[in-house]
Amino acid sequence: MKHGGDLLSYMHMYDGELIDFSSNINPLGIPNGLKEFIVNEFSAVTVYPDIKYRILKKQVAKYLGCDDEEVLLGNGAVEIINYICTLFNRVIVPYPCFIEYSERPTKLGKEVINLYIGDDFKVKAEKLLPYIEKGDLLVLGNPNNPTGYRIDKEELLKIHEGIIDKGAFLLLDEVFFEFCDFDYDSIELFKESGNVCIVRAATKFFALPGIRLGYAFAPKALAKRYEEITLPWSINAFAELSGRYIFNQDGYIERSKEYSSIQRKWMLKELKQINGLIVFDTSCNYVLIKLIDENEDNLFKYMLAKGIIIRKASSFDGLDETYIRLAIKDEKSNRYLIECLKGWRS
Amino acid sequence: MKHGGDLLSYMHMYDGELIDFSSNINPLGIPNGLKEFIVNEFSAVTVYPDIKYRILKKQVAKYLGCDDEEVLLGNGAVEIINYICTLFNRVIVPYPCFIEYSERPTKLGKEVINLYIGDDFKVKAEKLLPYIEKGDLLVLGNPNNPTGYRIDKEELLKIHEGIIDKGAFLLLDEVFFEFCDFDYDSIELFKESGNVCIVRAATKFFALPGIRLGYAFAPKALAKRYEEITLPWSINAFAELSGRYIFNQDGYIERSKEYSSIQRKWMLKELKQINGLIVFDTSCNYVLIKLIDENEDNLFKYMLAKGIIIRKASSFDGLDETYIRLAIKDEKSNRYLIECLKGWRS
Repeated sequence: MKHGGDLLSYMHMYDGELIDFSSNINPLGIPNGLKEFIVNEFSAVTVYPDIKYRILKKQVAKYLGCDDEEVLLGNGAVEIINYICTLFNRVIVPYPCFIEYSERPTKLGKEVINLYIGDDFKVKAEKLLPYIEKGDLLVLGNPNNPTGYRIDKEELLKIHEGIIDKGAFLLLDEVFFEFCDFDYDSIELFKESGNVCIVRAATKFFALPGIRLGYAFAPKALAKRYEEITLPWSINAFAELSGRYIFNQDGYIERSKEYSSIQRKWMLKELKQINGLIVFDTSCNYVLIKLIDENEDNLFKYMLAKGIIIRKASSFDGLDETYIRLAIKDEKSNRYLIECLKGWRS
Repeated sequence: MKHGGDLLSYMHMYDGELIDFSSNINPLGIPNGLKEFIVNEFSAVTVYPDIKYRILKKQVAKYLGCDDEEVLLGNGAVEIINYICTLFNRVIVPYPCFIEYSERPTKLGKEVINLYIGDDFKVKAEKLLPYIEKGDLLVLGNPNNPTGYRIDKEELLKIHEGIIDKGAFLLLDEVFFEFCDFDYDSIELFKESGNVCIVRAATKFFALPGIRLGYAFAPKALAKRYEEITLPWSINAFAELSGRYIFNQDGYIERSKEYSSIQRKWMLKELKQINGLIVFDTSCNYVLIKLIDENEDNLFKYMLAKGIIIRKASSFDGLDETYIRLAIKDEKSNRYLIECLKGWRS
């Protein structure tokens, strides 16, 4: 199983509704009013989307704090990552990480250098820079999936310095950005750089994995090349409508950030009290856990019997079958998860 | 302007609602009940689509008359064409044709051989086969955009024979298939071939250009390779829902075919009576026209002043500024178009 969220494969194994702790979606659900907005604008499906997505780009630009001409759009973040990879000859992928960082360039026939980031899972400039050459693309999750670690600001600035020195390019995948307690905003940091692209998406924070709306900040020159190579009309009408609605929902955005922060703190505290788990200090809405003297399959089966789907993490390069990843969800589900975990092996 | 349907660029030039004769969509609109179905199933956007699209593939397979494992899905037909092109080294593109047949492989860095199909715009085996070599991909629109010509069945069988002899592969773009008076079904013809992929879409016939749902028949071996290289979750939740609804609408499908056939015959008859036009005998829901002693810009401006957007056709390789393409729409719009055309230069 390469990805989480595949409930369909397990539905027949549990008599009741499964709780999905394998994909990391805002537990507050979609913004209020989005459904009504889309229903009212339903006739948008009967015409081609604006091939230049002019209105949508304006909205994204305002949300990200950049110019319209610096906005990339994609059929999910993964499409943006894919097409950025096509623009470089060699892609450097520190791991463990989201599997598509190396899968996409590999499928595109690119040379991919996979670098193990070390047992502490901390991204450090000194570990990466020696491997980077002129023209390379370095891909970093920030926070990184599955570790949940946000890159330390000073380290990130050092990495960026190295990228500039070497004439390389940095792709930051920040699809979990809004879940993090605010420390720095990469777009503010690197807006003038010319060598950084920062990818975000509606998928996780706006609870819209079905809508497939990825967007990114990129320097104008790169944004122009991206436009030239990507498929026409790749954002469907409903995704476009959603984009025109969600970024204006200030109350929802604020509430979601607060809720997520409270649940994360509670979950980390509770998880750390459970014997047999090594809990990694996540910055966002999922948490990586190492099982002591146990394996993912046993816990998966135990949890499935309780109606919970967890993410086995051995499919991530660099992790073995002693790792799992858990989403941080709504209070009720989180409490039930903790209760089940406490009951395991006790 | 590479594509039709870009009303946004002209809206400010006309005081009223523009009638779009530049994109070729079923004038009966979307199937009844689709909106209600999607509204009822709206919560589908809050989860990832099934990464294997099992239910959707079953529906498409039934509609196309093939096996689930022979179904390809794409974010519009253009995504399918794009990824099929990635699997071949050289792409043969007879033109004039839909611009993406050569643009996509060119952008993928493939060798593209553009072949002019001749002044009669008829696809003939003898004109194409001499250029085709082992491992090539031949891409043909059927019916072809912008000519409206469906490939003669005997010619198509000859082309297929040549493809098999040479060890090449044939991609038929049949996104306008349902609009054609039934003569043959390529999927029936080539289901056992192993060397043909046939692309169709919800875009035109189901009047859903905004939904981005392309699908295709392909031999199992190719379908498997396609799965391996395409992006995950590229069909969004609403496109998936639409696919689960539209193929069961037998009444709508029948009505649309009949209506389209009647309007086509009427339009061809009327157009042929107008002086100064050479009208190409279309098989589907748009018609190519050559203007005698006139050019597309003049007619475009004249029509825009009447609230009609036509498709200038000089952007198609092989055509010059004396060609235009017109959609065949609903009776009222068609009558208005004919009236306006009759008034031009008279």
